[in-house]
Amino acid sequence: MPDTIQFVLEIDKLKGVLRKVRPIWEERYENTAEHSWQIALFAMSMARTLELKIDVTRVVAMLLVHDLGEIDAGDKFVFAQGGWEERKAAELKALERICGLAPKKTGDFLLGLWKEFDAGESDEARFAKAIDRCMPVLLNLNKKGGSWLEHGVSYERVVERVGPEIESGCLELWEYLKPQLEAGRRKGFFAASTS
Amino acid sequence: MPDTIQFVLEIDKLKGVLRKVRPIWEERYENTAEHSWQIALFAMSMARTLELKIDVTRVVAMLLVHDLGEIDAGDKFVFAQGGWEERKAAELKALERICGLAPKKTGDFLLGLWKEFDAGESDEARFAKAIDRCMPVLLNLNKKGGSWLEHGVSYERVVERVGPEIESGCLELWEYLKPQLEAGRRKGFFAASTS
Repeated sequence: MPDTIQFVLEIDKLKGVLRKVRPIWEERYENTAEHSWQIALFAMSMARTLELKIDVTRVVAMLLVHDLGEIDAGDKFVFAQGGWEERKAAELKALERICGLAPKKTGDFLLGLWKEFDAGESDEARFAKAIDRCMPVLLNLNKKGGSWLEHGVSYERVVERVGPEIESGCLELWEYLKPQLEAGRRKGFFAASTS
Repeated sequence: MPDTIQFVLEIDKLKGVLRKVRPIWEERYENTAEHSWQIALFAMSMARTLELKIDVTRVVAMLLVHDLGEIDAGDKFVFAQGGWEERKAAELKALERICGLAPKKTGDFLLGLWKEFDAGESDEARFAKAIDRCMPVLLNLNKKGGSWLEHGVSYERVVERVGPEIESGCLELWEYLKPQLEAGRRKGFFAASTS
């Protein structure tokens, strides 16, 4: 029990990890803790709406832990070029440290969720990844381009980077997003293509 | 599908609702979105550690939605005196509006979770409430009194206000907290008693 409390106090640090996206109604960047809450509830609601035949409990659980590694490794902008293998190793090390604070059976359970999400092989992990990728797209579309314009990200880069994961994990979501992204392109929500 | 997206965009506002407690490593107040994430993961981990025979899926789901009413009604300090019946009515109205944005089957499911939490009758709701009450106590104990000193809350008021709900929902957690609170009292983490 005290070990589990130590774990809960340690994860408090995720409230201080800033992402590159801003909440719709705030000027500040969002942090990874509030992002994790939003996508967990997003996934739970969307799975219910689409009547998906997957284990939603595991999806939600994965989304609650999927970014814990950022406590040690910081946020990495999804549109960054390269460095992703080193990044994965750093996150795994962080997860082992943080989950290691909890009793072994609890820590192993949490680490297992992170590994399943990271592997992205189960239907649950692919749906969870689709939701995770989709959320900042929705926020940016509702911020007239938001972090895409702020950080020089083109329409092509967004479609190439997040499209396959969203399409693979939740086809309906990608079918919904595609015309929204095209409309955003016409409205000037993206940086010019660098290619 | 578009209705569910509207719901997900609406709940983004919870990131802007400030509570009276500060994260351990931040000077700012925490917001209700990040709080909801932390207690969902707290509940999931603690239920596993204690091997509780309850439906943890429903506990986590309740905690993800339990504070959505604050989008319209704002945060109410747990130690405020009075006004709790009007408050409950305002939150219910808010939930009906916000969940009403989603398709009916999804909205009814989410509203049902909120109502179960609010009623506090099921084992799951009582455990969820215990976790919700416990988290700010843990944060304040790790901030040398934090919001208790800042807002003039005495040791007696804390024990009287949060003790019964924590004890009823998770006896082990209350047994752990009691000596911590007494130690905090000796260290001057509380305002003087007003009685």
